[in-house]
Amino acid sequence: MTTSAAPRRPRADDGRMGAMDVRAPRSPRAGTRASVVRRHNLGALLECLHLDGAASRSQLGSVTGLNRSTVADLVQELAERGLVVEDGLSPSSGPGRPSPVVHVRPSAAVALAVELGVDSAAAAAIGLGGHVHDQVRVELPRGSSPQETVRLVAELAASLGVAPADPRVTGVGVAVPGLTRRVDGFVHLAPNLGWKGVGLGSMLADALGVPTERVHVGNEADLGALGEHRRGAGRGYEHLVFVSGEVGIGAGLVIEGRPMLGAAGYAGEAGHMLVNPKGRQCTCGAFGCWETEAGEAALLRAAGVRGARGVAAVDAVVEKVTAGDESAAAAVAEIGHWLGVGVGNLVNLLNPEVVVLGGIFQPLFPCVEEPMLSAVRARSLAEVSELVSVVPSDLGTSAQLHGAAEMVLATVLADPCSR
Amino acid sequence: MTTSAAPRRPRADDGRMGAMDVRAPRSPRAGTRASVVRRHNLGALLECLHLDGAASRSQLGSVTGLNRSTVADLVQELAERGLVVEDGLSPSSGPGRPSPVVHVRPSAAVALAVELGVDSAAAAAIGLGGHVHDQVRVELPRGSSPQETVRLVAELAASLGVAPADPRVTGVGVAVPGLTRRVDGFVHLAPNLGWKGVGLGSMLADALGVPTERVHVGNEADLGALGEHRRGAGRGYEHLVFVSGEVGIGAGLVIEGRPMLGAAGYAGEAGHMLVNPKGRQCTCGAFGCWETEAGEAALLRAAGVRGARGVAAVDAVVEKVTAGDESAAAAVAEIGHWLGVGVGNLVNLLNPEVVVLGGIFQPLFPCVEEPMLSAVRARSLAEVSELVSVVPSDLGTSAQLHGAAEMVLATVLADPCSR
Ligand SMILES: [Zn+2]
Ligand SMILES: [Zn+2]
Repeated sequence: MTTSAAPRRPRADDGRMGAMDVRAPRSPRAGTRASVVRRHNLGALLECLHLDGAASRSQLGSVTGLNRSTVADLVQELAERGLVVEDGLSPSSGPGRPSPVVHVRPSAAVALAVELGVDSAAAAAIGLGGHVHDQVRVELPRGSSPQETVRLVAELAASLGVAPADPRVTGVGVAVPGLTRRVDGFVHLAPNLGWKGVGLGSMLADALGVPTERVHVGNEADLGALGEHRRGAGRGYEHLVFVSGEVGIGAGLVIEGRPMLGAAGYAGEAGHMLVNPKGRQCTCGAFGCWETEAGEAALLRAAGVRGARGVAAVDAVVEKVTAGDESAAAAVAEIGHWLGVGVGNLVNLLNPEVVVLGGIFQPLFPCVEEPMLSAVRARSLAEVSELVSVVPSDLGTSAQLHGAAEMVLATVLADPCSR
Repeated sequence: MTTSAAPRRPRADDGRMGAMDVRAPRSPRAGTRASVVRRHNLGALLECLHLDGAASRSQLGSVTGLNRSTVADLVQELAERGLVVEDGLSPSSGPGRPSPVVHVRPSAAVALAVELGVDSAAAAAIGLGGHVHDQVRVELPRGSSPQETVRLVAELAASLGVAPADPRVTGVGVAVPGLTRRVDGFVHLAPNLGWKGVGLGSMLADALGVPTERVHVGNEADLGALGEHRRGAGRGYEHLVFVSGEVGIGAGLVIEGRPMLGAAGYAGEAGHMLVNPKGRQCTCGAFGCWETEAGEAALLRAAGVRGARGVAAVDAVVEKVTAGDESAAAAVAEIGHWLGVGVGNLVNLLNPEVVVLGGIFQPLFPCVEEPMLSAVRARSLAEVSELVSVVPSDLGTSAQLHGAAEMVLATVLADPCSR
């Protein structure tokens, strides 16, 4: 077995389930300790394959710490339940006889992932292994009402290959730029959508024809962090900050390998952190918030780009800068500076291993990297800033969709037998 | 049993150990699963008594979820090991026959707690139950070298009733205003002490005549947070931010009931968060850091207090304000404003249930409360700030000492049989 073919060993405390090496009888009575252990181990094995891709039984054994016969037994049950298949040969070119590999079946469990942005809405059918079966994004007129938005999401969902009520669909995961309550999908406040007190979870459940408990609503930056942590630039790190830049700026935190949502689920409202008291007034009423100084509006205003929004507008800015437009370059550097001031604050406060910049900051990254990093260094202790990497998002505009899918698929990983 | 006499029921996820209701034989072979469970349950019971005070067996049963005979069995072992005694009558005045109460023996395990401040050093012998056997604080000349400081700490320790090498002393816990490495007590950087790269753990072990692994060094704000969370204003909360105000400002975080130290143990360096770009230059080189705008130096300068430092100086400021000195009041209000800007950032970012203000902000609290809260409200979303309490420290200058003691006594709670 070559090292490159082996799934990376999860760290001790990265939020995965970790297998327990206790043999348990097949099909034990529900609720017994043995069945709890077995369910846990089935989930740990499936999660391994879901996150790290195909692996041979012996690789699964070494990653989970389970012995040979336990692995064989668990793989067999997962295969009987249709969640994995075992076939082909290990990609390893090392010595020894080739062994079959186990991999997930991307259609066995599918999440319907939805992202509501300020200017666009996206939907995707994402299966086990992070496999994107289908994905669609459309423009969303600013100021759309919850009703209009829900109608649009239902249309998007209908255009995907998998119907929301299909038994393979585990649930619907929705990323919203606002303060959300996971338990019932209630949106307390989404300033940049102009929403307040919206029962989005139940509205979507009605429109999609699925039970309310199948609809999970999360904050877009929290889900972006989850997506990057599980499938993107944050893989393998235990302390991660994801910065989501759109009209607003939000942060999603992963601490000791686990999403950090705060006491009421509102953690990460970094957009209203003060960075520049001489700055502009924010929609929140305060002056010089991070998002007013480094967000999309500031960028487009400073770079002199009009009539475009979102990714297209950012592309226009990047084009100007790469074409040698000095005033655009200076404007972008200024944005990079304020971006770095905020990142430096987060680094000082949270001592993360990695800061992942998503949304508009991903395409913008090469243009802002230098002033941003120099502001981070100026604002944080060398001992702390030396240890952190600031990197662009791997998943780009798909980070939130992947995070929404992970939120939904977590129920399958927690109990693969429940289906 | 009255409710008031019952120990508060720990929340599910507050970082305590939580008992497992699995009966295990007495004196099992070390390392077996049964012995692991038994050790865990002994620790959970002892922690209960350590944090919540004396309780009857039936109270212990209802708090830990363990059955009557398991509790009896565990209490007997703890008593045999000299960690608890059972006597007296329950403070309950309710009906039914009175039952004896179990309580910890404060001398059975003692932590030698040390706090190194910029202007003073303190040491205390703190036993099980948080009982302070003895405590001493002396002035420390600014700019004292590590050698001078260690010599002073050894003198302080010698003046306490318990010798560091006494078998009842579980270990030495040290709070330092800087970036520390817990594993070996190395101090990377302590800007306000003027220290860089100091092997404090081993120096103290030598000076006190104890093994190096018995000396635990932590950041003072992290330990202040731990102290307030376990014994002070943060009891019963799972999401807590402790703000330590001295010469510098630091933050200690408790998230989901557990100390959040960051990837390398450097989390909580909030003092260098930008709050006022028009502000003064900080020792870190940047301008308008939180600690330059709201720290001790800013307070004394603004309030026109000279020739005093630390608690005495803050007392002088409070006296001026309460005596009706309007310019001092305005100066203090300004400090309160900048304090609130920083607290607002922390609230937005972390969504805590409670922010505990320690150090100089405790005596100052009544004078800064109004401008501080109004800045918090101005800077954070109403939905988030409505949910948070900002309160003064309960433990005052003892928060760090209690936190240092808890860090040390944790080893006894993890395995009461190890002694
Ligand atoms: Zn704002
Ligand atoms: Zn500074």
